[in-house]
Amino acid sequence: MSVMTVGFVGLGAMGRGMAARLLAAGHPVRVWNRSPGPVQELVAKGATAAAGLDEVYDSEAVVSMLPDDRTVEALLLDGALLAGARAGVHVNMATVSAALAEHATALHAEHGIGYVAAPVLGRPGVAAAGELNILAAGEAAQLERVGPLLAAMGRRTWHFGDRPVQANTAKISANFLLACAIESMAEACTLAEANGVRPTDLIEMLTGTLFPGPVYSGYGAMVAERRYEPAGFRLPLGLKDVGLALAAGEARNVPLPFGSVLRDAFLDALAHGDADKDWAAVAAVARRRAGLPD
Amino acid sequence: MSVMTVGFVGLGAMGRGMAARLLAAGHPVRVWNRSPGPVQELVAKGATAAAGLDEVYDSEAVVSMLPDDRTVEALLLDGALLAGARAGVHVNMATVSAALAEHATALHAEHGIGYVAAPVLGRPGVAAAGELNILAAGEAAQLERVGPLLAAMGRRTWHFGDRPVQANTAKISANFLLACAIESMAEACTLAEANGVRPTDLIEMLTGTLFPGPVYSGYGAMVAERRYEPAGFRLPLGLKDVGLALAAGEARNVPLPFGSVLRDAFLDALAHGDADKDWAAVAAVARRRAGLPD
Amino acid sequence: MSVMTVGFVGLGAMGRGMAARLLAAGHPVRVWNRSPGPVQELVAKGATAAAGLDEVYDSEAVVSMLPDDRTVEALLLDGALLAGARAGVHVNMATVSAALAEHATALHAEHGIGYVAAPVLGRPGVAAAGELNILAAGEAAQLERVGPLLAAMGRRTWHFGDRPVQANTAKISANFLLACAIESMAEACTLAEANGVRPTDLIEMLTGTLFPGPVYSGYGAMVAERRYEPAGFRLPLGLKDVGLALAAGEARNVPLPFGSVLRDAFLDALAHGDADKDWAAVAAVARRRAGLPD
Amino acid sequence: MSVMTVGFVGLGAMGRGMAARLLAAGHPVRVWNRSPGPVQELVAKGATAAAGLDEVYDSEAVVSMLPDDRTVEALLLDGALLAGARAGVHVNMATVSAALAEHATALHAEHGIGYVAAPVLGRPGVAAAGELNILAAGEAAQLERVGPLLAAMGRRTWHFGDRPVQANTAKISANFLLACAIESMAEACTLAEANGVRPTDLIEMLTGTLFPGPVYSGYGAMVAERRYEPAGFRLPLGLKDVGLALAAGEARNVPLPFGSVLRDAFLDALAHGDADKDWAAVAAVARRRAGLPD
Repeated sequence: MSVMTVGFVGLGAMGRGMAARLLAAGHPVRVWNRSPGPVQELVAKGATAAAGLDEVYDSEAVVSMLPDDRTVEALLLDGALLAGARAGVHVNMATVSAALAEHATALHAEHGIGYVAAPVLGRPGVAAAGELNILAAGEAAQLERVGPLLAAMGRRTWHFGDRPVQANTAKISANFLLACAIESMAEACTLAEANGVRPTDLIEMLTGTLFPGPVYSGYGAMVAERRYEPAGFRLPLGLKDVGLALAAGEARNVPLPFGSVLRDAFLDALAHGDADKDWAAVAAVARRRAGLPD
Repeated sequence: MSVMTVGFVGLGAMGRGMAARLLAAGHPVRVWNRSPGPVQELVAKGATAAAGLDEVYDSEAVVSMLPDDRTVEALLLDGALLAGARAGVHVNMATVSAALAEHATALHAEHGIGYVAAPVLGRPGVAAAGELNILAAGEAAQLERVGPLLAAMGRRTWHFGDRPVQANTAKISANFLLACAIESMAEACTLAEANGVRPTDLIEMLTGTLFPGPVYSGYGAMVAERRYEPAGFRLPLGLKDVGLALAAGEARNVPLPFGSVLRDAFLDALAHGDADKDWAAVAAVARRRAGLPD
Repeated sequence: MSVMTVGFVGLGAMGRGMAARLLAAGHPVRVWNRSPGPVQELVAKGATAAAGLDEVYDSEAVVSMLPDDRTVEALLLDGALLAGARAGVHVNMATVSAALAEHATALHAEHGIGYVAAPVLGRPGVAAAGELNILAAGEAAQLERVGPLLAAMGRRTWHFGDRPVQANTAKISANFLLACAIESMAEACTLAEANGVRPTDLIEMLTGTLFPGPVYSGYGAMVAERRYEPAGFRLPLGLKDVGLALAAGEARNVPLPFGSVLRDAFLDALAHGDADKDWAAVAAVARRRAGLPD
Repeated sequence: MSVMTVGFVGLGAMGRGMAARLLAAGHPVRVWNRSPGPVQELVAKGATAAAGLDEVYDSEAVVSMLPDDRTVEALLLDGALLAGARAGVHVNMATVSAALAEHATALHAEHGIGYVAAPVLGRPGVAAAGELNILAAGEAAQLERVGPLLAAMGRRTWHFGDRPVQANTAKISANFLLACAIESMAEACTLAEANGVRPTDLIEMLTGTLFPGPVYSGYGAMVAERRYEPAGFRLPLGLKDVGLALAAGEARNVPLPFGSVLRDAFLDALAHGDADKDWAAVAAVARRRAGLPD
């Protein structure tokens, strides 16, 4: 395996597991994070602490895992930073908008740096285990170049084409489907309960027949048992992702009626103080609409 | 195993496989159907042809598999028929409304006949193989009595309580979730395609990660490939089932915003001539809304 | 003016004013009502009390003003009653479904009786003053025949064609627009209040500029002031009328997304105990969705 | 009347009529526009051409009428411009977002300049005639100061409070209600036509009874006659304004289900090439959903 020096930006719950996997695979990793705590953790595993982003970009490849568009724009879409970079390719693994993907692709091209979008499916534990599903898009040569890095972090890389925006769209679509599945179960469980069926009975049957797999069984249990804490994925992040789908649709004149319902339901949940709960708490909205107790 | 004489009403694509399973399990079966063709087929397998519904009801148990509320009401919810019946229990396996379930339960009780609701999940091939999932509700004694019959027809019986309407509600909820999954994928594939992602790539990734199982892979392929014929389940039947969910909701003041979107989408599909296509053709509505070609 | 004998069925809040107007115009009126109180009131004004519906139909024309489909069907769509009738024409002024209109037209034709649909716009005070707006449809000869009766009850008759269903559709459409206007103001007032604008200021400006007339000012004030009692038109009747629009749409494959939102909002209101309030109370749903106090 | 020197920015179809009214009322007006044509037109009426925005701001008051947030931000929310201004107050008459209002208020306060939001209701002809309805909010002293300017441009000024955002919210709410009225009529006319009622008959009755005033009669005629050109207000501007309502709602957790339906319908219209038509062309979407011919 070819080893390459990697600059890594963003050591949140996901990023620190991913950076550790790169280290474990033998790549020298230079890390940077806004708060210092996680940096020490990675240094203890063999990483080097970068003094600034310019040091991060003085690597063969940069990998970033930041929370949202705003942070990516503020930290990384910076002409001066890119102009001075040695790095030949940037792998952006965050869930960001289609618009940011287009902008970042063009900006990196101006500076002669490859740009790969590689958002992921999986929670922190999955990241730490190197078992992420990675949705990737970018020029074939760039994808090949960063293939070993992605292989170190994921169980499988799914390719969506040579334009980075394709991977971001796929990720946005996946999260949209997750939100739809949750709202569907919320409505079905409310309908069932109002007609005398125990929601847990309904979900047990559904996941034992038509809908196997962790999404329906995991979120189904949360919905049926009204167990929205602790949050695996907070409700405002859910609204953010629904917003990414609506925005990607608006840019191409794609109406998304289910997306519109989701947006209204998430706002209703936030209006009722559920910002710190899991996005499965959108089920409380379905119950409230029907006058069922919390 | 205790053998009992069974009257069977409704030899459609589902019913004939189910009746054959009862015969194969050793129960004497007297069959009745509005058109004679399927009767001969079952007689060839050992059934007796009933001259009329009164002969059907001159059995220990009656099993019916009719297409909709109207047919059940017209044929079986008949005071004279029930008054003269020898049968001690009627197992209604059709997908009917919550309102019909309530009415039928009361009417059978008046005539001292047990009533079990036992709608099923599965297509004709599954029925013929005796591999249906059966959603059952009714008084415990009645459920026990018909247990061997259900066991002959299904791979598993899921119990929802002692009131028949509970099983019908569970079935309605299951079909509602199917429709939601189809519309979700239709919107996601449209969003993806409009942003340059191949829908087949999206579905392959989704079914390989978050959404395993036959619903997402089967309907996902139909949606992604725009393959709506031949119809496994016709679009007007889909609208009928969405209508059952909306009606069950309306009776208990349960708003179903996803259900409302589904209703509008199915009407749009019918308005564009897709009545003979599979209900996956609701995906053509999502595409048309976005101006994508058929 | 040509005088004719009139049988009048249905002396509710609307019907008694309408029957009184017919009397005042010089027509002999034979009245019938399920409860006797209103009959005495009309007799005091010169009407004759009919012993039964057959006596009502022993008139030149029958006018009916009943609350809903079910009552019209139970009382008046009766083959025996129509077969024995002397009446040459029936003017049905109730707000009923498009389907009932079609059925009633055919049934009256079988018995050689003319059938005119003539639902009205206006509250009881308007009816008592003879100032209703009457939406009429039916064969030209029948409309001409009953013209003097309609003229006695309304300020103007609006014609929609020679098929009675056309008038019912127009009425259903008018009530649909009323419900849309209420929900629109409910959402706008909620949006305004949440952003610091007094709803009464908003409504005052709107009705003083873009939206003159009694609907926006009357319902606007109720919404802005959260004054939903006493009910001028009860919420369940509003849901019934939204249901008539949805059903008329479903019969012709017409999706009505605003209608779907209305249906969900009215169910939400009923689920929260607002059945005895004015249909303007749907505004409480908009507020609750946004977490604003009742 | 107190005369004051006015800098005027934005001589579009609306702005040039408004600036002319200020001139006619005797105020010296210094005008600026991105394209020079309209400047000459106003100079011919007595205005002075400003060489740059700094000259515009060297007046006692600045009035601006720009098309959208982006333009206001790019031209006027500029610290250097405000720091060098002599103007004591800026009256922003554009339809902009609630967020921009908050930002602009704070920025002007930093530079000791008053900020009044005063968006308007009315088309260019109304502006030229000085008959606009002006929705105003800001500090009482500032409103008083600019009262004579507003009086010169409008038939009436409606006050919404001391925070500029209140006026913008009122304007956004008014346009939201316009869009709701159009969609309501579009659905009602489609329902009517599919059931055999002429849409023009329906609109004539509605505007003659429940819904007087120019909105229902003007847009009603366009919808009923499917006459969407020439555009009085282009469809993409309609979507922009619906977007302002949705964004103002999102900022306060206010779900707007009618707004969501509108957004989806406008996107559908744009996806079908109707960007140059009047926003009444959203009615073509309602027809298409029902399979009616264009």
